[in-house]
Amino acid sequence: MSPLAELEAELPPGTLVTDPDVVAGYRADRADLVPAGHPLAVARVTDTEQVCTAMRWAQRHGVTVIPRGAGTGLSGGANAVDGCLVVSLERMTAIREIDAENHLAVVEAGVINADLGRAVAEHGLFYPPDPGSFEISTIGGNLATNAGGMRCVKYGVTRDATLGLEVVLADGRVLRTGGRAVKNVAGLDLTRLFVGSEGTLGIITAATLRLRPAPPAPPATFVATFPSAPAAGAAVSAIIAAGAVPSMLELMEHEAINAIEDYRRMDLDRNAAALLIGQADGYDAARQVATMIRCCEEAGADFVVDTQDPAEADGLLQARRLAGLALTEQGPSVIEDVGVPRSRLAEMLAALADIAESTGVRIATVGHAGDGNLHPTLILPDLEPATREHALKTAEAVCRAALALGGTVTGEHGVGILKRDWLAGQLDDTALDVHRAIKAALDPRQLLNPNRGW
Amino acid sequence: MSPLAELEAELPPGTLVTDPDVVAGYRADRADLVPAGHPLAVARVTDTEQVCTAMRWAQRHGVTVIPRGAGTGLSGGANAVDGCLVVSLERMTAIREIDAENHLAVVEAGVINADLGRAVAEHGLFYPPDPGSFEISTIGGNLATNAGGMRCVKYGVTRDATLGLEVVLADGRVLRTGGRAVKNVAGLDLTRLFVGSEGTLGIITAATLRLRPAPPAPPATFVATFPSAPAAGAAVSAIIAAGAVPSMLELMEHEAINAIEDYRRMDLDRNAAALLIGQADGYDAARQVATMIRCCEEAGADFVVDTQDPAEADGLLQARRLAGLALTEQGPSVIEDVGVPRSRLAEMLAALADIAESTGVRIATVGHAGDGNLHPTLILPDLEPATREHALKTAEAVCRAALALGGTVTGEHGVGILKRDWLAGQLDDTALDVHRAIKAALDPRQLLNPNRGW
Ligand SMILES: Cc1cc2nc3c(=O)[nH]c(=O)nc-3n(C[C@H](O)[C@H](O)[C@H](O)COP(=O)(O)OP(=O)(O)OC[C@H]3O[C@@H](n4cnc5c(N)ncnc54)[C@H](O)[C@@H]3O)c2cc1C
Ligand SMILES: Cc1cc2nc3c(=O)[nH]c(=O)nc-3n(C[C@H](O)[C@H](O)[C@H](O)COP(=O)(O)OP(=O)(O)OC[C@H]3O[C@@H](n4cnc5c(N)ncnc54)[C@H](O)[C@@H]3O)c2cc1C
Repeated sequence: MSPLAELEAELPPGTLVTDPDVVAGYRADRADLVPAGHPLAVARVTDTEQVCTAMRWAQRHGVTVIPRGAGTGLSGGANAVDGCLVVSLERMTAIREIDAENHLAVVEAGVINADLGRAVAEHGLFYPPDPGSFEISTIGGNLATNAGGMRCVKYGVTRDATLGLEVVLADGRVLRTGGRAVKNVAGLDLTRLFVGSEGTLGIITAATLRLRPAPPAPPATFVATFPSAPAAGAAVSAIIAAGAVPSMLELMEHEAINAIEDYRRMDLDRNAAALLIGQADGYDAARQVATMIRCCEEAGADFVVDTQDPAEADGLLQARRLAGLALTEQGPSVIEDVGVPRSRLAEMLAALADIAESTGVRIATVGHAGDGNLHPTLILPDLEPATREHALKTAEAVCRAALALGGTVTGEHGVGILKRDWLAGQLDDTALDVHRAIKAALDPRQLLNPNRGW
Repeated sequence: MSPLAELEAELPPGTLVTDPDVVAGYRADRADLVPAGHPLAVARVTDTEQVCTAMRWAQRHGVTVIPRGAGTGLSGGANAVDGCLVVSLERMTAIREIDAENHLAVVEAGVINADLGRAVAEHGLFYPPDPGSFEISTIGGNLATNAGGMRCVKYGVTRDATLGLEVVLADGRVLRTGGRAVKNVAGLDLTRLFVGSEGTLGIITAATLRLRPAPPAPPATFVATFPSAPAAGAAVSAIIAAGAVPSMLELMEHEAINAIEDYRRMDLDRNAAALLIGQADGYDAARQVATMIRCCEEAGADFVVDTQDPAEADGLLQARRLAGLALTEQGPSVIEDVGVPRSRLAEMLAALADIAESTGVRIATVGHAGDGNLHPTLILPDLEPATREHALKTAEAVCRAALALGGTVTGEHGVGILKRDWLAGQLDDTALDVHRAIKAALDPRQLLNPNRGW
């Protein structure tokens, strides 16, 4: 029996897919610049035991395994290599439990982020991490990348919301980490080690997630336009330094505003050099917004308006949420993802303008500015080899600029394959050695997502 | 040259201490039941390079190294083994930087928690984790144990406040993790792996910590007394389920109240079966407290009073902060530390009463109830072998009761040596294997804090 036939026989009928047309859909994520290989097959598993079976089989035959959620990643982390097995978690979609009293949920890896949000909303709760891809990405992918989003400036990223994990290790055993107690120091924090490990240490099959009570009142919202992107960055720095607590603080500069307006008319000011949308929730929302508005005015905002009208606020949020789609409509694109200390935002935005000018690449920036996390998006005329090469150089320059300001080459999208070479500017040899030692300890044959993540 | 003479020559004069009287002071932490060995010497280092020197020397000679902060631990984690070198961080007390704009500080491991608090208060900031030992324990010890405290129910534990670390690895190299960007997914989350690793993976020499702006208004405070400890537990469960956001929610039951009153007159109600002290901060403090009071009343509180008077509130907090000292004044004691899901507090408190009754051991409980974290304190008549053995059995029963409720054997004090045997009820063989694999990867000769932590 061929190895593949053996695996097929060990899994329920229909689980293993080898049809080349179907398999082709599992080759890559959404990182246009990262090459992808050809998988041998895709296992669309429906339970944890099947993941163990696949992993044990991979060990027996020395086959590389690529775990995959929805493939919405932006760094090539889920891209196939030739001859690999893709283990797709998309069919593990059970919400095993919602414990409303303790504000937690136990969910399988394939649950779509927004589906979890809808399920817990019935209990007056919400799951804070809300990546732009919340309607299309999986909780497993969010965990593997430690995804962030618009609410994270107040409520924390995926790692902060994770109490425990169920993980299939490279040797096919099931590891259970953490638990239901919100404070727990029994042993090493394996939970948070696996969160953000980009599928390199194990395959996450389920998680115990911490929920929050829905804010008690409708949020207060403001929008401010600025005569320059650095002025908007300075406003954010001032808001943070002032100790305000935004529940959302997002930036869009000129190119991004216009891409959104091109995509759908949202009544944003096409002439603005940059705009900030901010929100505060809770009983003190109005006061928090008042502080933020003052900071914007002092930073030179042209125009500031606040609203408590939910419809108006929703419109603004929707405009921001459209940014990802709108920007990709402009042509092939590279959605970059860097972070800087929040006092350095103005400098980072100035550096981006310089890079755009010196490289000639259109850069449209949006970002979770309140967290110092920006997505400078390179909009490319085509994907010809020379264009790609130039785009990679430009993306690298963006990362170097962030590092020069004491920042990071990735705030939330992960290193994947795309950013491996640039990471060396951030992690030194000792740090990389520690990464390799942990990898070797948990996956000595390097079968799980090899050569990516760091 | 003897190995010790060699180390002495490599370190600045006065750094290495071998005087038996002085060395004896470094043998143990505050876990009365855990045996301690005799160190060869103590290195009272003043900089990171000296830690590297000590670690390289230990590798050359195969000497066990016990990192130590202030020795206030409660699980024997810092206890010496015969022939070890204790590396004391207590003299690394520099606050290297306070970056008020970005709300962060870079501090050395030996800084006392309260000293950091005082230093950043000048900038209108605070460092949230506030263990009961905040005036006497070090940031390094807090990091190594992932310490909690009274403010953690709202502001998170030590791990949540850590952005980056400087760590001396077992091989003597310096590892730098994390950074200054608040969102950062570049590589594995080594920062949070080292936090809470109880000195088993490396010696933390410095950390970049996240600060918070001081709350904008004086907190609102309430105190409620209950006819039974489980009723107080039920009130906490209701407060959490109701979505209230306490900035502090502490429990003391009858024995603890009386121990505090014995120690110093604080005007607590000696007849109360249990009391809760709660606070909320921010602009909505009064509303939050109103919700909490309603929950207490519905759970059957005898008496509830709220106050916005800072002096009165301080008195209550001081009473709670005295609990640790007051309880240890009652005689030899074992300060237990368990966590349960917050809906199970009433059951845990009932279980504690049962254990006290069936074992005949006095148990005085205080705890960070809002986090489900309780410190049932065993008060012992003496430390005779039979008493110790009975106390250990009783402490084990407490841990088993927490596990039976879906909880943890340690919420914040760590496993140390004390809880190793009980941990097996919480971490299965696979989980322990992963711990061992990571340990072997980072400290193959098992020189750093061997046989403790898990
Ligand atoms: C329009 C758009 C907007 C976006 N906005 C954001 C944003 O605001 N914030 C943000 O953080 N990201 C954002 N992203 C990026 C992406 O959606 C996230 O990285 C997301 O978490 C990926 O989830 P996924 O299910 O698609 O994972 P995939 O892309 O399938 O996989 C991502 C990585 O995780 C691994 N992986 C997946 N599932 C598992 C598992 N169960 N166990 C172990 N490893 C696994 C993969 O091998 C890969 O390395 C956006 C993407 C798009 C297209
Ligand atoms: C009265 C009292 C009240 C307390 N209240 C609380 C509380 O509310 N919350 C709480 O969490 N704890 C509490 N504790 C326990 C204790 O104070 C904490 O565990 C504290 O974090 C220990 O700090 P330390 O500097 O004394 O560390 P130590 O006791 O010296 O060491 C603790 C552990 O960390 C290791 N370690 C120390 N420093 C380093 C370093 N730099 N690098 C690597 N490993 C290191 C040691 O080897 C040991 O395993 C209390 C203790 C007392 C006596």
